[in-house]
Amino acid sequence: VKLTVVGIGLIGGSIGLAAAARAGAEVTGFDPAPEVAGAALARGAVTRMAETLAEALDQADAAFVAVPVGVLAPVVDAVLAAAPSTCVVSDVGSTKRIVAAAAEDQRFVGGHPLAGAETAGVAHARAELFDGATWYLTPTSNTSGVLYERLHRLIVTLGAQPTAIDAEAHDRLLASSSHLPHVLANVLASHAADALRTLSERPAAAGPSLRDATRVAGANAAIWPDIYLANADALLPAVDDAVARLQAVRAALHSGDRDTIAAWHDQARRDRDALLGAGFSGGAVLHELRVSVPNRPGVIADIALALGRAGVNIVDLSLAPSADDRQGVVALWVRGDAEADRAQALLAATLDLPVARA
Amino acid sequence: VKLTVVGIGLIGGSIGLAAAARAGAEVTGFDPAPEVAGAALARGAVTRMAETLAEALDQADAAFVAVPVGVLAPVVDAVLAAAPSTCVVSDVGSTKRIVAAAAEDQRFVGGHPLAGAETAGVAHARAELFDGATWYLTPTSNTSGVLYERLHRLIVTLGAQPTAIDAEAHDRLLASSSHLPHVLANVLASHAADALRTLSERPAAAGPSLRDATRVAGANAAIWPDIYLANADALLPAVDDAVARLQAVRAALHSGDRDTIAAWHDQARRDRDALLGAGFSGGAVLHELRVSVPNRPGVIADIALALGRAGVNIVDLSLAPSADDRQGVVALWVRGDAEADRAQALLAATLDLPVARA
Repeated sequence: VKLTVVGIGLIGGSIGLAAAARAGAEVTGFDPAPEVAGAALARGAVTRMAETLAEALDQADAAFVAVPVGVLAPVVDAVLAAAPSTCVVSDVGSTKRIVAAAAEDQRFVGGHPLAGAETAGVAHARAELFDGATWYLTPTSNTSGVLYERLHRLIVTLGAQPTAIDAEAHDRLLASSSHLPHVLANVLASHAADALRTLSERPAAAGPSLRDATRVAGANAAIWPDIYLANADALLPAVDDAVARLQAVRAALHSGDRDTIAAWHDQARRDRDALLGAGFSGGAVLHELRVSVPNRPGVIADIALALGRAGVNIVDLSLAPSADDRQGVVALWVRGDAEADRAQALLAATLDLPVARA
Repeated sequence: VKLTVVGIGLIGGSIGLAAAARAGAEVTGFDPAPEVAGAALARGAVTRMAETLAEALDQADAAFVAVPVGVLAPVVDAVLAAAPSTCVVSDVGSTKRIVAAAAEDQRFVGGHPLAGAETAGVAHARAELFDGATWYLTPTSNTSGVLYERLHRLIVTLGAQPTAIDAEAHDRLLASSSHLPHVLANVLASHAADALRTLSERPAAAGPSLRDATRVAGANAAIWPDIYLANADALLPAVDDAVARLQAVRAALHSGDRDTIAAWHDQARRDRDALLGAGFSGGAVLHELRVSVPNRPGVIADIALALGRAGVNIVDLSLAPSADDRQGVVALWVRGDAEADRAQALLAATLDLPVARA
C-alpha cells in the first residue's frame, strides 16, 4: 500500500511507523517545516519525503492529514485537490465539523484517533501509539464504500479500533469527554497555584488528586487553543453545564445539606463506573455477519454509523461487489454474542438489510 | 514505644503496621466496630485489641485517632480524657479546624497524612503507605515541645515527612488542592455521563483525559460528604473561584478571543509546573542547626510553623533541655544548602533565636 502522510509530528509520524512496520507500507511524507524531513527519515517514520503535495500524493492509495486543527481545513482541501481519484483521504483532527466541507468529496472520511497528546513531535512517534485506541471515523452519505473499507482496514492494521460516528455527535462527545476535562484541568491548576501562593511563601506540595486532575493542564499549547475555538459552540454548553453543577453543589454546601451532598457524591461514583464500564468486550467470540447491500453511495457509512451508535465495534469489514455491480455483500466481524445479536437486529430492522450469520 | 490506634481502617491499620515493623512499637487497637478486631489482628496491624478506650490508652506514649471526619471531634475529646498526661495525641483527619478545641490541650497535635484514600479498610493497610508522603501537623502555642518532638520522630519512622502548618492554612490549602479537585471530578463524571447518554444509546468510550480527571469521582463515600461539609467555609470560596474562572474562559470562547485563550492555556502550564516543582530537595546534603530556645510553651510549634511556611522541611529534630530547665537547645536537621541558609536566617530574624551551624 502506498501511503501519504501530510504533517509529520507525533501522530503523523506514528501512523508512518505503524503502517511501515505492520502493513509494509511505502510511506511518503510531506511537511511544510523543512527541519522535519531529517528527523522523520532518521526516525523511520517515512520512506521518503516529498518536496510538494503533488509529488507526495502521486499514486497514493491513502492519505492522512495530520496537521494542527488551526490549519486543518485548507490543508485537507489542498490534499483532496492533489490526490488521485482512487485515494482515500482522512485527517486526525480533534474536532470534525471543521472538515465538513471536505466531506462533500466521496474520497474523504474524517478521523480522530484517541491517542497521544502530552508529547509532541516526530521524535516521540512510535508504532505502538494507537494500539487498542478508539479511532473515530465520520463517514457521510457521500462516502465511497470501497474507500471506507480500505481506511477501516488500514486503521485496524495500525492497531486501533475504528468507530463510526456523526461529525456533530463526535464534536459534542469530545466537548464533554476531552475538551471540558482540559478546561477544568487548566482552571484547577491556576486556581490551586494562585491559592497556594496567597497561603504562604512556599508552593505547597501537590497531593495525588491535584496531580491527576491537572495532568493535561496547559498541554500542547501549539494545538489546544485552536481545538477549544474550533469546537466552541459544543464546548460552551458543556462549560455552562459544569458551572450549573458547581452552583448546585455550592448551594448544598452552603446550607449544610448533607443528604444532597451524599446523593450527589454517590451519583458521581455511579456515573464514573458507567463511563469506565463502556466498551469492553475483549476476549469474546468473533462473529461474522454477511449483509446484502444495494450498490448505492453511503450504504457502508449508514451501516458503520448505525452500529457505532449502538456501541457495536466493527472489528473488520470486507466488501464484495456482485458481478453486475448492482448489489454487493458486506462481511462484518463483531466481537461478542450480544453485540452480534444487536448488530443483526439493527441491520434488519433499522436499515432493512438482509443479514446472514456465517 | 507504646502506641494506641483508635479506628483501625486503611490509615489506622497502616500506622500500626509501620510502627510495629519500623519502631518495634507495641500497638494497642480500639475500634467501635466489633468485626474489625479479627481482621486487625490477622493483618498484624495491632499487637492486641482493647475493649475500652481506657484500656487501650493505659500507659500509652502516643495515640492516633484515625476515624472518619464526621465523628472525629468527639472521639478526640474522649481519647484526651482517657490518655495519660504524658501521651501525645494526634489524628489523621482531612480537615483540621474541627479538632481546634482539642488543641487547647498541650498533648494534642492535629495531623493529616497525604496518603491513601481510594481503598478503605484494614484489609488494604500496609506498612509502606506513608513512604515519602507529606504528613501535615498543626501544632499551636499550647503544644508541648517534648510531645511534638516525639510525634515528629514517630512520623519520620513511619516513612513520612512531617510538615508543620497552621490549622486554618491547612484547611484552605486542602480546599484548593484536594477538596475542590474532588468536587470537579464529581461534576465532570456526572456531566460527561449525562452528556454521553443524550448523544447515543451507547455509553461512549472514556478517553484518557476523562479517565484521569475523574479518578477520584465518588471516592470513598463513607467519608467524603463529611469532609466537604467540615471544610465548607474554605471550600465555598474555592468553588466560587473555579466558577469565575470558567465564566472568564466562556467569555473568551464566546467572543473567539484566541489571544486570551492562548494566554490562559499557557498560564495553566506554568501553574502546573509550579505546583509539581514544589518541595523536591531529595539527595541534597543534610545540615544540623542548633537553636537555643527559652523554655516556654509553644516555642517548638513556632519554629516548626515558621520553617513550614518557608518551605523548609525538618527532616529530624531533637530537644535537649538545660540542667536548670530554663533554657534548652533544639537540634534541627534540614536538607539542602539553600534550605539551611533560609532556616538559619528565618530563625535569627523572625523568631530572634540564636542559631549555630553544627
